[in-house]
Amino acid sequence: MLRYLGVDAGGTSTRAVLVSADGTCLGLGRAGSGNPVSSGTEHAAAQVLAASLQAVTAAGTDPASVAGAVAAMAGARVVGGPDWLNQAAHTGGLPVTFRLEADLHATFCSASPEPAGYALVAGTGAIALRVRDDEVDQVSDGIGWLLGDVGSGFWIGQQVARAGLAALDGRGPATALSRALLEQLGLDPDPADLIEGRSRSVQDAVDLLYSWRPVDLAHLAPLAFAVGVDEVADQIVSAAASALATTITAVRQPGLRGPMVFGGSVLSRQPEFAAQVRRLAGDFDDPVFTHDGLVGAASLALRRHGVPVDRQIFDRLTTTIAAARAAA
Amino acid sequence: MLRYLGVDAGGTSTRAVLVSADGTCLGLGRAGSGNPVSSGTEHAAAQVLAASLQAVTAAGTDPASVAGAVAAMAGARVVGGPDWLNQAAHTGGLPVTFRLEADLHATFCSASPEPAGYALVAGTGAIALRVRDDEVDQVSDGIGWLLGDVGSGFWIGQQVARAGLAALDGRGPATALSRALLEQLGLDPDPADLIEGRSRSVQDAVDLLYSWRPVDLAHLAPLAFAVGVDEVADQIVSAAASALATTITAVRQPGLRGPMVFGGSVLSRQPEFAAQVRRLAGDFDDPVFTHDGLVGAASLALRRHGVPVDRQIFDRLTTTIAAARAAA
Repeated sequence: MLRYLGVDAGGTSTRAVLVSADGTCLGLGRAGSGNPVSSGTEHAAAQVLAASLQAVTAAGTDPASVAGAVAAMAGARVVGGPDWLNQAAHTGGLPVTFRLEADLHATFCSASPEPAGYALVAGTGAIALRVRDDEVDQVSDGIGWLLGDVGSGFWIGQQVARAGLAALDGRGPATALSRALLEQLGLDPDPADLIEGRSRSVQDAVDLLYSWRPVDLAHLAPLAFAVGVDEVADQIVSAAASALATTITAVRQPGLRGPMVFGGSVLSRQPEFAAQVRRLAGDFDDPVFTHDGLVGAASLALRRHGVPVDRQIFDRLTTTIAAARAAA
Repeated sequence: MLRYLGVDAGGTSTRAVLVSADGTCLGLGRAGSGNPVSSGTEHAAAQVLAASLQAVTAAGTDPASVAGAVAAMAGARVVGGPDWLNQAAHTGGLPVTFRLEADLHATFCSASPEPAGYALVAGTGAIALRVRDDEVDQVSDGIGWLLGDVGSGFWIGQQVARAGLAALDGRGPATALSRALLEQLGLDPDPADLIEGRSRSVQDAVDLLYSWRPVDLAHLAPLAFAVGVDEVADQIVSAAASALATTITAVRQPGLRGPMVFGGSVLSRQPEFAAQVRRLAGDFDDPVFTHDGLVGAASLALRRHGVPVDRQIFDRLTTTIAAARAAA
């Protein structure tokens, strides 16, 4: 029996799955960050290898029986090809050659076996993708928290912090986000004293927030959705929805139909928000939601090694991987 | 003759001046970063001491003849009082006790001897200040590039980068900022190829800009003013002017009149922009411009040690310090 390995190497964790040619999940594995940019190639290779060997072991089979492997990750371009990974695999007891794929392509393929379509992923960052002929054809945004990622969790969280502080600072309209922000940070929402001409609550919040990594402002995004009736919060949410609709529209190609996949925590955890983005985006199919890229990595592992993935195989990948994860 | 030492300790350089009680500049000194937060207290103390001793030596006098000293700097609160500086001064041959003042207060005092008024400083950051009874009474904004500093050089530069890239990315309206940005970065403005579904110009600009410190996006601010007729650039500049007007208005206290001081490179180098901010700010005196806080530090050194600074002494400080700097 031929076996194929799909790896979804993320910045937080790496997930691996061994599947058969008919799409049955044979074994799962899991390890730490497999992103070669944020963690370095040596660490990333070790994590991909560990997760892969765990999947092979769980399947009760031999590493030499793996016929093909795909690792999906962000930043593969930056580290220039898969040599760093394959050298580590070959010396580490996994005699297979990985092919690298964009993590977003795996996200698309986790929701659909179609060779063309669209994906919009809004988690900490935000990016839109057009897939055509089984390849990434065009992307929009995804250029990071400082320069883009408009409408992402970071973007919403930063707007929450900025608006909440501006109101306390006398520069912006009053908003329930101010109190929600201070409470989330564990700060006194009603300080009486000033520090060098500034309210202590503002100064304490600023001191605390600059001790975070900038991207961690994404942790504040849920406040925009949870604060209740508030004009300032509504404006932030509407601006984010509008920006994400613009981002997905930027990759639309007239005549190219296909599923529209929605991924990332902001879209998957806020159904009303996702519906708003979908309305504003206009002429697309209704979105299919997905959570990560493991099914897609397995699907690409099959397709990149000559095994066409039809709807039946795709459904079997989805069902058996979900069942194995639930049992783990 | 009693002599007083004023030090303007900035993040890039530290300037010191020794003055007599009638406001005559006796000697200047200069050293590296004297900011205790960004450079650490040990380094900052050494720079303040070096600049001070240089000013005393240039005046041909003895360190023991200094009757009082003020050091103006940002972040004095963070390092908790002046002990770190005074210990270094006393063991380093300068037997005087420094009093610390906010750098922005020295900026205000560089432009006016009045005990009350307002200041708006827009350089890399942006902050407004109300002075009352010779003390900082209230501030607004100045909470840094990630959370505030709206309308600052950083803020404008970030908008330039975001708008220029959004246009290239198909997410924003066409703008001359795109080409201006790529040219400023030394990148090909007309690349034919795509990298992973993205225009090479966007990818190269993104890779380059993330190698900068975030605050260095302030270097892109001049493009917003220099790009010529461009609706997107005009919107950025207008939004910045409006934000700065809001920031200074936030510290306005009805009935408290006094000069309005404008400082920082964005306001001092863009006279039309400064005029726009002044118009939008409404009920203030016309702005007085200032460049740094050295005159103000000297003025505070006199006033904090019982020497009132009237208009005549203030003018003598301004004139003689400017003449000494021109001769240096």
